[in-house]
Amino acid sequence: MPSPFHTSRLVEFHDTDMAGIMHFASFFVYMESAEHELLRSLGLSVHARMEDEHVSFPRVNATCNYSSPARCEEILDIDVAVARIGRTSVTYEFRFNRAGDEIATGSMTAVCCTVAPGQPPISRPIPAEIVEKLKTYAA
Amino acid sequence: MPSPFHTSRLVEFHDTDMAGIMHFASFFVYMESAEHELLRSLGLSVHARMEDEHVSFPRVNATCNYSSPARCEEILDIDVAVARIGRTSVTYEFRFNRAGDEIATGSMTAVCCTVAPGQPPISRPIPAEIVEKLKTYAA
Amino acid sequence: MPSPFHTSRLVEFHDTDMAGIMHFASFFVYMESAEHELLRSLGLSVHARMEDEHVSFPRVNATCNYSSPARCEEILDIDVAVARIGRTSVTYEFRFNRAGDEIATGSMTAVCCTVAPGQPPISRPIPAEIVEKLKTYAA
Amino acid sequence: MPSPFHTSRLVEFHDTDMAGIMHFASFFVYMESAEHELLRSLGLSVHARMEDEHVSFPRVNATCNYSSPARCEEILDIDVAVARIGRTSVTYEFRFNRAGDEIATGSMTAVCCTVAPGQPPISRPIPAEIVEKLKTYAA
Repeated sequence: MPSPFHTSRLVEFHDTDMAGIMHFASFFVYMESAEHELLRSLGLSVHARMEDEHVSFPRVNATCNYSSPARCEEILDIDVAVARIGRTSVTYEFRFNRAGDEIATGSMTAVCCTVAPGQPPISRPIPAEIVEKLKTYAA
Repeated sequence: MPSPFHTSRLVEFHDTDMAGIMHFASFFVYMESAEHELLRSLGLSVHARMEDEHVSFPRVNATCNYSSPARCEEILDIDVAVARIGRTSVTYEFRFNRAGDEIATGSMTAVCCTVAPGQPPISRPIPAEIVEKLKTYAA
Repeated sequence: MPSPFHTSRLVEFHDTDMAGIMHFASFFVYMESAEHELLRSLGLSVHARMEDEHVSFPRVNATCNYSSPARCEEILDIDVAVARIGRTSVTYEFRFNRAGDEIATGSMTAVCCTVAPGQPPISRPIPAEIVEKLKTYAA
Repeated sequence: MPSPFHTSRLVEFHDTDMAGIMHFASFFVYMESAEHELLRSLGLSVHARMEDEHVSFPRVNATCNYSSPARCEEILDIDVAVARIGRTSVTYEFRFNRAGDEIATGSMTAVCCTVAPGQPPISRPIPAEIVEKLKTYAA
């Protein structure tokens, strides 16, 4: 049984807002950074994918559910599971924990696209080698 | 029949990413700014609510669906409707258009809370006067 | 005598931090957005410059001096003057006022560069037509 | 002879812009995060300082000089030195290196202030114990 990919991250000051908590939009940034860390752990690189193959994964959906606020300098544990791999898209699920308590969950669906400067992205099947690697963290 | 609140916004350079398009997380920032503009149009202020009444509206859910990328210096038309007003929560729905074409839709649910520094927010009924005003843009 | 370019901007919630004020780094974002608005007012476009001519203006220096904090929903008046136009670089000076009181000043120096994907930017003389237009707001 | 505080950081996707490089304003965010990491290494906490003592360090100046662009997923080495400790202010100097090459330098001056919600910050002498600790990294 695969386990989710795990990373952790300290809530930074610039991610807080005047309500004294981490701004809700920063959870999406943390999700994306965890996704990229997962990709790097598989030998995949956002950078390489973009420059060598001109392949990118724009998002078609992003969702977050918040149950408890995060505060500056707290450590967030982030689990990432590959919930679904389709022909052209992949869905990641995220769980944010603080000291063992879940504070937020989220998901992002990204579509594999060929990209050229100034052109709209064109969806394409996810390369087989990437599919194989993503299965490492399949839910 | 109420109409949605409308605002528009130019995509700024700092909201783009190396894929040449507006970063997906910035759509959430634009949603929140449109929500706050709606509140100001009703004589409500994020600022005043926070300082005078210590009432805030942390989000419990935020979602965005992306159908076409936005690029630097494009003008986005943003419609905001109040989709649901509950006892303690309000759900906004957002539609992003560019030159008449829908490029993204989203929603946010915020819960009315009493907030004190360093304390967890405590949910409370939305004040009646705020409920009345929000109905201006009820879907 | 040329006058500076003027724009104004409301401080948005996501630009605040847990100290209850606008985060210091957001002043740089506001400076850049004011610079781009100045460029658009002259018929120049960040977008067009990047795509049609592959010319960009990466920064070599950015500075800000803060004298008073800015708060959410305050209106900031921003004056931009073109302080110096060199062969390959341009220096902008910025003044942030709130209700007539100066709260911050800043400057940015950008170098005209030819850019190609994955390559380091190469400095080049600022095109004569851009120099002419920038003189509109020369200090 | 004291050595500077050292940390490193990977350039994240959301910090890039459509020019394909790390956005210039993100260097200021990275500087602040390195400063906070330095403070934590000394047993000082941004969070604690703000909540227990109501003491904060708003910036009065921030500067950055850029000599080479940073790209997504590059590792930046960041050295932080305490360049000057005054009665009420402290100046940090930053050096960003990539694989041994300097790509940017910067500085930030912060003033020790007593802060109360909705009030302007009032400068005050830096507490002696903080001064002692900061000397660890004095240039």
